[in-house]
Amino acid sequence: MQQEDSRSDGGHPTGRFRNTAYVISKSKPHFDACHAAGLMGIQGRSTTGRAFALGAGPLCGRPEVMDFVRCSYLGLDNHPTIVAGAMDAIEAHRSLHWSCARTRLNFDFLAELETNLSEMLSARVLAFSSVMLANLGAMPLLASGLLTGGRKPVVVFDRTAHISLAYHKPVIADETRVETIAHNDLNALELFCRREPVVAYVCDGVYSMGGNSPIAELRQLQERYGLFLYIDDAHGISLFGRQGEGFARSQFPQGLGDRTIIAASMAKGFGASGGMLMLGTADQESLFRSYSIPYAFSVAPNLAAVGAALGSCKIHRSPELGERQRRLAERIELFDNRIRTAERGNSLPIRMVPVGSETRAIAIARELLDAGFYTSVTFFPTVAQGKAGIRMCITADHEVKDIQRLCDCILEKMASTTSRAQQESMRS
Amino acid sequence: MQQEDSRSDGGHPTGRFRNTAYVISKSKPHFDACHAAGLMGIQGRSTTGRAFALGAGPLCGRPEVMDFVRCSYLGLDNHPTIVAGAMDAIEAHRSLHWSCARTRLNFDFLAELETNLSEMLSARVLAFSSVMLANLGAMPLLASGLLTGGRKPVVVFDRTAHISLAYHKPVIADETRVETIAHNDLNALELFCRREPVVAYVCDGVYSMGGNSPIAELRQLQERYGLFLYIDDAHGISLFGRQGEGFARSQFPQGLGDRTIIAASMAKGFGASGGMLMLGTADQESLFRSYSIPYAFSVAPNLAAVGAALGSCKIHRSPELGERQRRLAERIELFDNRIRTAERGNSLPIRMVPVGSETRAIAIARELLDAGFYTSVTFFPTVAQGKAGIRMCITADHEVKDIQRLCDCILEKMASTTSRAQQESMRS
Repeated sequence: MQQEDSRSDGGHPTGRFRNTAYVISKSKPHFDACHAAGLMGIQGRSTTGRAFALGAGPLCGRPEVMDFVRCSYLGLDNHPTIVAGAMDAIEAHRSLHWSCARTRLNFDFLAELETNLSEMLSARVLAFSSVMLANLGAMPLLASGLLTGGRKPVVVFDRTAHISLAYHKPVIADETRVETIAHNDLNALELFCRREPVVAYVCDGVYSMGGNSPIAELRQLQERYGLFLYIDDAHGISLFGRQGEGFARSQFPQGLGDRTIIAASMAKGFGASGGMLMLGTADQESLFRSYSIPYAFSVAPNLAAVGAALGSCKIHRSPELGERQRRLAERIELFDNRIRTAERGNSLPIRMVPVGSETRAIAIARELLDAGFYTSVTFFPTVAQGKAGIRMCITADHEVKDIQRLCDCILEKMASTTSRAQQESMRS
Repeated sequence: MQQEDSRSDGGHPTGRFRNTAYVISKSKPHFDACHAAGLMGIQGRSTTGRAFALGAGPLCGRPEVMDFVRCSYLGLDNHPTIVAGAMDAIEAHRSLHWSCARTRLNFDFLAELETNLSEMLSARVLAFSSVMLANLGAMPLLASGLLTGGRKPVVVFDRTAHISLAYHKPVIADETRVETIAHNDLNALELFCRREPVVAYVCDGVYSMGGNSPIAELRQLQERYGLFLYIDDAHGISLFGRQGEGFARSQFPQGLGDRTIIAASMAKGFGASGGMLMLGTADQESLFRSYSIPYAFSVAPNLAAVGAALGSCKIHRSPELGERQRRLAERIELFDNRIRTAERGNSLPIRMVPVGSETRAIAIARELLDAGFYTSVTFFPTVAQGKAGIRMCITADHEVKDIQRLCDCILEKMASTTSRAQQESMRS
């Protein structure tokens, strides 16, 4: 890339966005404890449903664990149609991967996939090898002003936007003004909309640590002020909508128009591998197909990912999707009927049991693993310091008894270290 | 991520590194012309060797084209052992992909792959879903000073370092000083080494647009000043060394030590899909396994990629690797004996025929495609403005006659628009 000058301006660090050494110094003891407890960096092999065989070596000797970590919310990641799609695509090409940019040569199946997804989601869909790279490609284009009529926007981030978005703040700040507001702070956002000629808002649709963006209210700001919306709905795709449009896309029934872009996963709820962007206009599509950095300088999803996603499209177009969405909703309700969390009743599959102390959260997660349940212990920098917790991803493929046993187990483990009042407040 | 403050400091854009709108305004006519000429965003299906069937629809009706775009330098991307590795891994798990971070749950095969790669490359190897994400994970850690004894380095970039490195300059500049020097300017680099207590240099091993870093000289600076080296050898892996250590790694025969990290591809010469980092110490490994952003917040290479890479390890450990390295060297020599380029004699597989005018380069690439050869027409921002050219990736799988015919064709097409003196200067 020849676009940067090489002048030596002795630029001192701006220190506005990142302090990697601080993050590491504050969190290393917890990471180390997690690894020592066998909760991080573990190995496994999927067996049936949401179970996996823990560890390595001969399968027969390994304990079977019920998983609540993987985000396969509809239980599709080991669906026979998706697995067959991956195998068939490799078989047809006798290749897995082409080492060239998408601006050059593409698998014919990849074009077929994008056509399928575009029809299904009523948007112009581009596939990427991961959501992180889909976002990386979009952020400089957003900063450039070319998505907002040639005028650079003030780019406003939700404070809890996923790191795959927040990482790019310094890159955007090199080209335009960047601001960060409190989580879902619509008043602060509206103030920017009033004061600034062009504003773009960057947020998650469904937040990976629980909760969601108020899409309806964001649409009102868009209608009133022309707010540009960039929504990462990696955790919301497939869970809602007749063809699995997902949390964010299903709230734009009239189409995305020229002021909304939604990123989503081809994994997670969707069940395959990779990421995607839903665009609203032909101009946007043409811009991304030449200038999205990963599109021009990295690689396409590999052929197994493409084939698996084609398999997932078949499921998304069948009655099975609705059945799985309903099974998921039942299981979320079942959990909510047993354990009271901040997420109760939001019909999303992520639940966080707050613990507070990192050390205690790690101990509880280890006890849950000993009881046969793998959960994610979450702590700084993923959540704030001293706000550690246990995160669970509920899926359509969990058996009712798995959810019930997990809830029993959590209440029991929490009980051993909390007061009776706290225990009562946890029970639904 | 909770690490950033939300103060509104009204930070104005720094404008030091990126000007996306400028790049687009200068290059859009060429991108548009390339798309209109059917040279960009094309589709195909691999057939045999380096040929592919151009377009979509029924295979029998499509023209067959000899490809010089894909970077499968050893011709491994459709090798039966690699394809079988991908299929076997999917079959064993009955899954393609797990939606969770590598800090949580990993395919048992992925641990096996990293063990294999670590032995083969005499380094601590971590696998990533792409080189771009491997680099994204490394850059903030480099900036933090935690790779350089707790002291933040001045991070010096080669001006032509790949965009997957250069993209992160503003992110690094938020934490430490960033400088950019001319391509392979060892004098400028040594000046920084003399003046600054800690310096890190970021460069490609083999440059994607031709040429390479002077690794031996960089090692001398490392020995003299403690220079930290971060080398992206995506295009150099597998091409050299008894087990395919590659261009960069094979020039550190005593091991990487604690001052060198090499990024490489699991695709390109390696023949599978994904990226990797070669680290030198246990402390570095532990740091990356907790704090590399894509490791903690994105996904592992999918199981097809892992299986394909395990297949490629088998080839790397067999005599076939050396045979393919020799076949490649012969074909590069054959090309160099016909056409004189700046890269002649460097034993690397990337060759650039300089054209100059973007419009003329596009016309020549189109004529080559009409003659049955797909090449990459390269122009700004990939190379400087007015320095467009035709890029070819030579592979071990090209037949001798394919190389000869390509060379004939290039000389013929160039002849129609250059003077006799220029023509003579092109012939070897």
